[in-house]
Amino acid sequence: MKPVLYILSTPIGNPKDISLHTLEILQKSDLIIGEEYKETSKLLKRHNITKGFELLNEHSTREDILKLIKQIKRSTVSSILSDSGSACIEDPAGSITQLALAEGIELKVAPGASSLVAALSLCGFYTSPFTFIGFFSREDATRKQEILHYLNYKHTLVFFETPYRYKKVILEIASMVKKEIPIFLGLDLTTDSEYKYYGNIKHLCKILDTLPKAPPVIVLGLTQNLSRLYIPS
Amino acid sequence: MKPVLYILSTPIGNPKDISLHTLEILQKSDLIIGEEYKETSKLLKRHNITKGFELLNEHSTREDILKLIKQIKRSTVSSILSDSGSACIEDPAGSITQLALAEGIELKVAPGASSLVAALSLCGFYTSPFTFIGFFSREDATRKQEILHYLNYKHTLVFFETPYRYKKVILEIASMVKKEIPIFLGLDLTTDSEYKYYGNIKHLCKILDTLPKAPPVIVLGLTQNLSRLYIPS
Repeated sequence: MKPVLYILSTPIGNPKDISLHTLEILQKSDLIIGEEYKETSKLLKRHNITKGFELLNEHSTREDILKLIKQIKRSTVSSILSDSGSACIEDPAGSITQLALAEGIELKVAPGASSLVAALSLCGFYTSPFTFIGFFSREDATRKQEILHYLNYKHTLVFFETPYRYKKVILEIASMVKKEIPIFLGLDLTTDSEYKYYGNIKHLCKILDTLPKAPPVIVLGLTQNLSRLYIPS
Repeated sequence: MKPVLYILSTPIGNPKDISLHTLEILQKSDLIIGEEYKETSKLLKRHNITKGFELLNEHSTREDILKLIKQIKRSTVSSILSDSGSACIEDPAGSITQLALAEGIELKVAPGASSLVAALSLCGFYTSPFTFIGFFSREDATRKQEILHYLNYKHTLVFFETPYRYKKVILEIASMVKKEIPIFLGLDLTTDSEYKYYGNIKHLCKILDTLPKAPPVIVLGLTQNLSRLYIPS
């Protein structure tokens, strides 16, 4: 039998946003690969899983990854999880899946929480199609070009940003559009301090100062053809 | 206190892909809105939730939706779920969220399984950015135009299709591209009969005949700039 690597999802805020299947896979995994020590350890402890684990994150070298691949090949069931949300979406787990496939490891998934989908569910915008941008470039000129590029898309856009930079990026986008854009901003989604802004971008800019530094998900409602909305007339 | 409408996620194949939080919300909901009778009933029964529920699906009229809004406003906690995956992504639940917001109902989310994210986790392609297309048009000429439009995107594309039409659409896309395109096809993901194809579209076309009619998720790997992959060199 092929060795199997399960791609898991972890809570994005509320610790109960974890599936029965994910807990079962963690219990039966011979090898668990987490993102950061503190978060992985906290998650396993909360669910009484008393196992060691390896780490894969932005500090991992190619050698570290090749070593993990060898360990997966020696195991029957391995699992990989990110600190928050679905592994392989804007997190380091993506670096191992291609190599794993090339090495004859079967990938399986226990789907679960994703802040991207959470924000789309909440935003009220039409979600087919939508484009997920990930993070914009940290470099000012490149980011400006990227923003201009995506504003040409006539459909819903989702992006992530750091708690420290999201206000700056929202102000930049607002300065680059003439018209109002419907925007949804979610901060600390699913936690007790969850904040949700529904409105338009020029108005949001006026209150940005009052908002906390917290992990954001931002959705821009660029859909022109509102007749595609499901609402029956 | 504002009435709350929870947007829930249900398993896409494996019945254990449901979160502790989702089960808790279903237990405490005064009002549950499902998509189809059979699926909603099966899910609630499996988890010993003995409550009635309302339906919202493509047969619902505007009057039905307005009636549901009234019921949500009379309830403390309501929840809405689709037959499979995350409510509000390519399913009828999207039709109620905008009206709910306009009526002063608070939306909350208990994030969970989504076949879109499941396929992205499995595909091994770079996932930032990616565009989710939803379903292509059923109308031949329009679909062809849509395919041409999206093939211009130089990043990962994900789309859904029906079990009956996915082979036709994959053949169409293959006929419209000169170069090979890396493709991932997932059928019946997370079930015991899960099938995963990794390869290129021209090769996939040669074996399409041998594949079952099953719910597919298709990912096209159009990313040009592979240097953006996480793999450290």
